Amino acid sequence: MELGNYSPRIREALEKAGVGIGDMIAVEKSGSTHRGILLPRPQIGGEPGSLLIKLDNGYNIGIKYGPQVTIEKLQGGRRLEAFPSHELVQNPDLPRISIVATGGTISSRLDYETGGVKWRMESGQIFYMAPEIQDIVRIGRVTTPFLVGSENMSAMHWRKMAQEVARELDDGAEGVIVTHGTDLMHYSSAALSFMLRSLRKPVVFTGSQRSTDRGSTDASMNLLCSAVVAGSCDLGEVTLVMHGTMEDTHCLIHRGTRVRKMHTSRRDAFRSINELPIGRVWPDGRVELRGGHTPRGEGEVNLDYVFEEKVALLKFYPGMEPEVMDFLVDRGYRGIMMEVTALGHLATDESQRNLLPSVERALEEGVVIAAAPQTLYGRTDPLVYSEGRKVWKLGVVYCGDMLPETAYVKLGWVLGHDVDQETAGEMMVKNIAGEISPVSDPRAFLT
Amino acid sequence: MELGNYSPRIREALEKAGVGIGDMIAVEKSGSTHRGILLPRPQIGGEPGSLLIKLDNGYNIGIKYGPQVTIEKLQGGRRLEAFPSHELVQNPDLPRISIVATGGTISSRLDYETGGVKWRMESGQIFYMAPEIQDIVRIGRVTTPFLVGSENMSAMHWRKMAQEVARELDDGAEGVIVTHGTDLMHYSSAALSFMLRSLRKPVVFTGSQRSTDRGSTDASMNLLCSAVVAGSCDLGEVTLVMHGTMEDTHCLIHRGTRVRKMHTSRRDAFRSINELPIGRVWPDGRVELRGGHTPRGEGEVNLDYVFEEKVALLKFYPGMEPEVMDFLVDRGYRGIMMEVTALGHLATDESQRNLLPSVERALEEGVVIAAAPQTLYGRTDPLVYSEGRKVWKLGVVYCGDMLPETAYVKLGWVLGHDVDQETAGEMMVKNIAGEISPVSDPRAFLT
Repeated sequence: MELGNYSPRIREALEKAGVGIGDMIAVEKSGSTHRGILLPRPQIGGEPGSLLIKLDNGYNIGIKYGPQVTIEKLQGGRRLEAFPSHELVQNPDLPRISIVATGGTISSRLDYETGGVKWRMESGQIFYMAPEIQDIVRIGRVTTPFLVGSENMSAMHWRKMAQEVARELDDGAEGVIVTHGTDLMHYSSAALSFMLRSLRKPVVFTGSQRSTDRGSTDASMNLLCSAVVAGSCDLGEVTLVMHGTMEDTHCLIHRGTRVRKMHTSRRDAFRSINELPIGRVWPDGRVELRGGHTPRGEGEVNLDYVFEEKVALLKFYPGMEPEVMDFLVDRGYRGIMMEVTALGHLATDESQRNLLPSVERALEEGVVIAAAPQTLYGRTDPLVYSEGRKVWKLGVVYCGDMLPETAYVKLGWVLGHDVDQETAGEMMVKNIAGEISPVSDPRAFLT
Repeated sequence: MELGNYSPRIREALEKAGVGIGDMIAVEKSGSTHRGILLPRPQIGGEPGSLLIKLDNGYNIGIKYGPQVTIEKLQGGRRLEAFPSHELVQNPDLPRISIVATGGTISSRLDYETGGVKWRMESGQIFYMAPEIQDIVRIGRVTTPFLVGSENMSAMHWRKMAQEVARELDDGAEGVIVTHGTDLMHYSSAALSFMLRSLRKPVVFTGSQRSTDRGSTDASMNLLCSAVVAGSCDLGEVTLVMHGTMEDTHCLIHRGTRVRKMHTSRRDAFRSINELPIGRVWPDGRVELRGGHTPRGEGEVNLDYVFEEKVALLKFYPGMEPEVMDFLVDRGYRGIMMEVTALGHLATDESQRNLLPSVERALEEGVVIAAAPQTLYGRTDPLVYSEGRKVWKLGVVYCGDMLPETAYVKLGWVLGHDVDQETAGEMMVKNIAGEISPVSDPRAFLT
């Protein structure tokens, strides 16, 4: 393992101290001593002027190098022999999993062109930050079907991911980790939840909120926890595993259809909405499952990866003009997922901006209109207020406590099946992948 | 006070016991005795077969009447003499406030036409459920500019409300309560936050999640707490006051630009996002303010109630086609508020559904495009990732930690000022009514 990515000054100091990547070292700076394993800088960029070390608690820290910093190689310390670039040391006794890597922060580096962080992933590179993964699972195969951030994904990518995951599972993998950009990861986890029918093994979406060349990256623990879930968890569902707290304590196992990114930057940004997470997982292998999930089992995946792309998500707002809905119908959209207010209302005032005629026309033309609440928490109930009843009577499908993002994905998937309007409506409100329930758990509000 | 709205059977029993509205009574049923003040049934509908009584703790309960129920009039109990229908007993020593009533659940009744609950409000009726309000404030004037649910409101209504509120304050009211439907109440509170410049008295939006003819209505405590804030709170801002917990313990005082309905039905559905609430208020008059708010003061309101209605809110989603944005530009929209992913991304992939050319074209045609995060919590930061930088460089205005709903309202208000694109962008990111801050409070995440 070369020291290539560190600054020349650090390289010189490391060579002088006889230290290589993977050595246990002590770094003293301003009266503090940090003991840990010297990590490689996995990509160019980041902070090449900082030493990156992995502390015993598993946390990676970056220490800015300068004349006042001393580096000492510790004898008898644990030495990680293998920081694989493309190959991992494989233990044949461990469960075999596969990894589908798709870009995102978890495989990012600084981009000199724009000055921002850019996606980039070379097969195996993501393990630099989590070498302990080889003590948890055997990595059967790492595939990289495409390298794009989640904001550039759409049905095409979901289909491709579903295909790759199904192939790996049918090929005997005990589970699959999908590394993914976090921004819209919950759309992808919802999509695969619907596309992978008869699923009986864990599919785990994970990513990182802080890039892997920052000391505070969450990539390491997220990968380790995901490996625990994929390798040995008694779970046959699509899940999303990310930090459960701001600290590196544990991760939460979220159901793929019930999770949403609720913060732009926090490590614990992902939250289950309207139900508690499926469980918790620690990087040392401990798992706590709440119960009520589909257990692990046998059988091939039924790959049902259709998707009607002529589906839109529209968030209703005061002042919204009906012409936007008319436009979608004119353009041949077959489904519109409306983010309605709270229990399920839209503007119905006859004096101005009444959306009902446009809704009625869309329904008459065979478009499926589904409704989920923009409050995110809670459930639609169009029957409480007379305004809601008017909308419901027209034939709008109310999606209960389904997340709007999940309902959008489900609508595209349902309409991909070449079903008529009525059947589509019935499928929308029928539970398929844990996305809807008759009673929401009140403990899941803002937790 | 007549017993008119109760069922004939209950009226008979009440008359037999010599009980009138406002009397302290004991109701025994199935071994339990409930002591409290007999309330009138304020509207037709609801549960005319149930006795509605106000317990000493201020909570209203409904007790279904039947042969096994006994009613006893208690001597020496407190008797509320005045359950005004249109007039309140006024105490000239109390602070004078005004009420602008605009419909919503807080003034609703069962609608026999559709079977749902329908808005309906007759001036003064809302006080049936909160007669104690006359011990807190003197109601100078109740106006009802219109009676529509919040889903049917738009800029026209915001302008009218702003006008009414400004007139009441300039006429000497110490504060104004605006009763309002809850669904989109946060849009209205944001609108008035911008439209009422130089505001130095409290404007309090409130409503109820449960209709006033249900025993579990939250209208009573919300009104009392709002009266405390409007009448005597040292606060010169637009606020929203609603239940702080599931119980009738206290209300939270939210800043009008920082609050959002986060649950379809819970009494404590409204939450401050990215900052802690301004304070807490109890119906007995206690108030705790966090600090940092604009204090009460003197001076007339500067009514700045312009609004450009050609503004849209668009939530970005995977698969979104650029044609929707093109359509808005073609239709003469002057502003588009984009709900972007997390830190501020949109699809920029050149192979498909790249939104950048449409964004670029819109900006070239003078449209202002603003961006706020669909995660709700956290802040946009387009400079972290290269994809974000591409969008930012084009001239999209990133709104930091402003809520998307607030940013939409602000964009319409800013563009109402006949400013150029650059000035509009500068106004969007300048703090005007507490809507944006350089640092968000981490304690405000999911609380």
